[in-house]
Amino acid sequence: MRKIRVMAVQFAPGTDKTANFDKVKDTLRAAFDTLPGDALPDFVIIPEMFCCPYDSALFEEYGEREGGELYRALSHLAKDHGIYLVAGSVPEIDDKGHVYNTGYVFDRKGIMIAKHRKVHLFDVDFGPGKRFFESDTLTPGDRYTVFDTEFGKMGLCICYDLRFPELFRLMALEGAKVTFVPASFSTKTGRPHFSLTCRARAVDNQMFIVSCSSAYSEEAGYKAYGHTLAVDPWGEVLGELDEKEGVLMVELDLSRVDEIKGSLPLMKHRREDLYEVRWNRRK
Amino acid sequence: MRKIRVMAVQFAPGTDKTANFDKVKDTLRAAFDTLPGDALPDFVIIPEMFCCPYDSALFEEYGEREGGELYRALSHLAKDHGIYLVAGSVPEIDDKGHVYNTGYVFDRKGIMIAKHRKVHLFDVDFGPGKRFFESDTLTPGDRYTVFDTEFGKMGLCICYDLRFPELFRLMALEGAKVTFVPASFSTKTGRPHFSLTCRARAVDNQMFIVSCSSAYSEEAGYKAYGHTLAVDPWGEVLGELDEKEGVLMVELDLSRVDEIKGSLPLMKHRREDLYEVRWNRRK
Repeated sequence: MRKIRVMAVQFAPGTDKTANFDKVKDTLRAAFDTLPGDALPDFVIIPEMFCCPYDSALFEEYGEREGGELYRALSHLAKDHGIYLVAGSVPEIDDKGHVYNTGYVFDRKGIMIAKHRKVHLFDVDFGPGKRFFESDTLTPGDRYTVFDTEFGKMGLCICYDLRFPELFRLMALEGAKVTFVPASFSTKTGRPHFSLTCRARAVDNQMFIVSCSSAYSEEAGYKAYGHTLAVDPWGEVLGELDEKEGVLMVELDLSRVDEIKGSLPLMKHRREDLYEVRWNRRK
Repeated sequence: MRKIRVMAVQFAPGTDKTANFDKVKDTLRAAFDTLPGDALPDFVIIPEMFCCPYDSALFEEYGEREGGELYRALSHLAKDHGIYLVAGSVPEIDDKGHVYNTGYVFDRKGIMIAKHRKVHLFDVDFGPGKRFFESDTLTPGDRYTVFDTEFGKMGLCICYDLRFPELFRLMALEGAKVTFVPASFSTKTGRPHFSLTCRARAVDNQMFIVSCSSAYSEEAGYKAYGHTLAVDPWGEVLGELDEKEGVLMVELDLSRVDEIKGSLPLMKHRREDLYEVRWNRRK
């Protein structure tokens, strides 16, 4: 089985943590109640920091340990529907009280099979009212993340991680055929760069990219760009949302990866005798 | 002086080597005869393999040693007009008889200040009539290329080199603010990937990219895509041609590089503690 159905749930998280989770749960239930069996998703992906407003000052308040209440609810959701759940990201608090921007992936049995802590923190300053410093309250991760599924290897990273080609190269070299990117680009940078960067990473690394964004909300302090997107390894957009809340359903034909690598063998043509992207820490 | 005027001459090389050079010479003369002084280019860039048909079987026949007749004519052209000439590329033959796809850059005095041998050879097979193997006759280079100018550092690579993000990262880390890319993408890969890849490299590495292509020609065996392009570090297209012969004139405001790096410090946010793009050979 080489075709994967992926469902991305784009929404604007509000201040009520339970309500944010329920939005995911209800959307999934509605899909499973109404879609025919062969149209049901294998993978569901939700946005970065889907359980809280996107505000550095609030992450700790909404945070939990790994294995906490929200984590268990996400695990159950995956198991209940028999799906892989790329569970966006949430504020994760560790033993030392550090807060991370963490994405979990649960398999069809609800078992956590991947965990990625955002490696590159979003610290930007576009002038008054447009300053956003994740590092004010977050600690960055120090690993890149590839995981196994019945469909083959897949990668996972979070939002601003998308900006760094090194990370994608490392995932591609490990054999990732699809990379999932829970995200929440701002309107300022999303419009010029989000689709462009997703498409270029897909083409360069000959992989599918599925990125699920937060929706734009007039009420939210942080103006999310939305535009959840799925791209094939040739850079073609398989599906895209606008800025509003919505669901994207796409089918990924994984045989495209080998087909494209066969005619345009980019990975083989890398000059490994000259350069390497080297990981200098434990994996 | 932070603004640079760049002129790109897109044309379809024919079988007559002298006529191909004369096309560049005549286009430049016409520009210098007609443009007001403040509109004249500082840099001129011409296409990959501008002196011959794009055919692996012919490269040796059109090739010369470094310092040969065509090389000297290019040097004179730069000196005559007082411009930097990014002289596309030509087949270069070395002492051992190896043939390279080589780009020279001459400064305003006609002195050669950079030389790049295409590092990644274009070996692709899109089916009958769409097989192209540069490695049938060419030897690849083994260095990346950055050079100094009165405007700061600039990078140089050739066509298929564009596909490899590692090369651009290395040039960016050396401080290149503009990268010049003589090119001759095919219609097959140019349409989906040429602009996308130029724009993504510019955004990721916060540099300008100017790529000059061969024009499409009904007569030529190799169907070039054209679409010569200049992109700023925010990924905005400053100017673009269609597939036909033509001249693109753009102004690059180099202060944009620092401005963009100031608000979105991608290069600073690279996790150098975790990964590196490592060059494993002499530079």
